[in-house]
Amino acid sequence: LEVPLIRALGFDADDTLWHNEDHFAATEDAFADLLSRWATPEDAKEALLATETQNLELFGYGVKSFTLSMIEAAMELSGGAIEASDLVMLLERGKAMLARPAELLPGVEQVLSELAKHYFLIVITKGDLHHQERKVQMSGVAHFFNAIEVISEKDPNSYARLLDRHNIIPSEFVMIGNSVKSDVLPVVHLGGIGVHIPYTFTWAHEHAHPDHELHTRNVDGARYWELDSIREVPELVQRLAGS
Amino acid sequence: LEVPLIRALGFDADDTLWHNEDHFAATEDAFADLLSRWATPEDAKEALLATETQNLELFGYGVKSFTLSMIEAAMELSGGAIEASDLVMLLERGKAMLARPAELLPGVEQVLSELAKHYFLIVITKGDLHHQERKVQMSGVAHFFNAIEVISEKDPNSYARLLDRHNIIPSEFVMIGNSVKSDVLPVVHLGGIGVHIPYTFTWAHEHAHPDHELHTRNVDGARYWELDSIREVPELVQRLAGS
Repeated sequence: LEVPLIRALGFDADDTLWHNEDHFAATEDAFADLLSRWATPEDAKEALLATETQNLELFGYGVKSFTLSMIEAAMELSGGAIEASDLVMLLERGKAMLARPAELLPGVEQVLSELAKHYFLIVITKGDLHHQERKVQMSGVAHFFNAIEVISEKDPNSYARLLDRHNIIPSEFVMIGNSVKSDVLPVVHLGGIGVHIPYTFTWAHEHAHPDHELHTRNVDGARYWELDSIREVPELVQRLAGS
Repeated sequence: LEVPLIRALGFDADDTLWHNEDHFAATEDAFADLLSRWATPEDAKEALLATETQNLELFGYGVKSFTLSMIEAAMELSGGAIEASDLVMLLERGKAMLARPAELLPGVEQVLSELAKHYFLIVITKGDLHHQERKVQMSGVAHFFNAIEVISEKDPNSYARLLDRHNIIPSEFVMIGNSVKSDVLPVVHLGGIGVHIPYTFTWAHEHAHPDHELHTRNVDGARYWELDSIREVPELVQRLAGS
C-alpha cells in the first residue's frame, strides 16, 4: 500500500473559497440591459466575450480587464451611439465588483481552521495581483494561509516554479479548486494530487451527505478526486495520509 | 575590513531597466489636450492625479488602473459633457501603452549579461502582474533573470518574504532601482545593500564618466549607493565583494 506523505495544500480562491462567477454574471446582465437598444442579451454577451478574448493577451485576467472590455464592447455594439454616462456606469459596475468583500462559501472557514493546524496552506489564484491579495486580506481567512500566490497563468510550469520556491515536492502537494483545467490537471501532470470541487449556486444551500463516497475521475488519463464540497477535504486528506 | 558576500541582485524594472515614466507623461499630455475645453493642462493633470490617488487602494498600480482613472476623471472634469468617443480614445491610449514594447535603457543588456554569469538575478517590480511579466518576456533580457517577482507593495515585509522564498540572506542582497522609497530604503532597512540610480530623460544621451567616483548617500539614517547609470553596477559589486 502506497501512502503519500501530504505536506502542503493549495487552494484556488475564486469560486473555491468564495463566490465570484455570479458577480460577473450579474454585471454581464447589466451590460446586456444597457445595450438592449442595439442587441439582444445573447448577442450583447457574445460580443462582450469576444472583446474580452481579443484583449486577453494584452490585459490578462481580472475585473479591471473585464471593465475595460465592457467599455470597448459597448462602444462597438452601439455603433458609437452610446452615451458617455453609460460608459461611466459600466466603470462604476467594475468598481463595485472590486469593492465587494469576498463572500465565503459554506464550510470554508471551519475547514481551513482545521487544516491549518497540520499543513502548509497556500492560496494559488490567477488574475489581478492587487485585487486578489486585497480579497484574501479582507476575507477573514488570510491568517490560515502560509502564503498567497497570484500567478498569471495556471500551467504546469507556473506550478512547478511555485512549488520549488516553497521547497514543496509535487507528490506531497494537494491542489483544490473548481477548475479541472487550471487547478487539477497541471498539478496531476507534475505528480501532485488534484481535487476538483465544482462550483454551483446550489452550494449555498447546505445539504447533508450522510452516506457520501469520495470518488475519483479520469480526464485525459489524469486521475483526480472529485468532491461535492470543501467540507470533504479534511476527510480526503486523512484518507490520503492513510490515517 | 568587512567584505560582504554578494549572492543575489534585484533590479527594479520600470525606469531602471526600461523607459516608463515618459510614456505616462505623454498620455497625461494627451489627456490634458482632450480636456482643454474644460480645464487648463495643470488643472486637468491635477484632477487626474487626484482620481488616481483616490482609486489606488481599490485599483492598485499599473496602466489598466491609470486608464480607468483617466476615463473617470474625464467624465468629472467635463461635468458629463465629454463624448463617449473621447472616453474610448483614452481607453485606446491605455491599450497602446500596454502594447508598447519595453525600450531598454542604455547599457542594460550588457550589464545584465555580465552579472548573470556570477549572480542570482531577480526582477522585482510592483504593479500589474500580467503587464509586468509581459514586458519582461518581451524585453529581450528575460533570460538573464533567475526569477521575476511582481509584488503589490515594495515595503520591508514584501522584500523579506520574497528573499526568504529564494533563501537569500538580506546582507548578501543588492537592490538596484530608481526609487529611493521603494527600491532602496526597504532593503537597507532589512540589512541589504541599496543602490539608487535616478531616472532622467538625459540618460538616453550617452555620456562618458572618465573620472566618476562611486559615492554613497544618507537618507533618514539609511546609507546607500548612488550611481549615474546601470553601467556602474558591475564595478560597484566588485568593490563590495572586495575583489
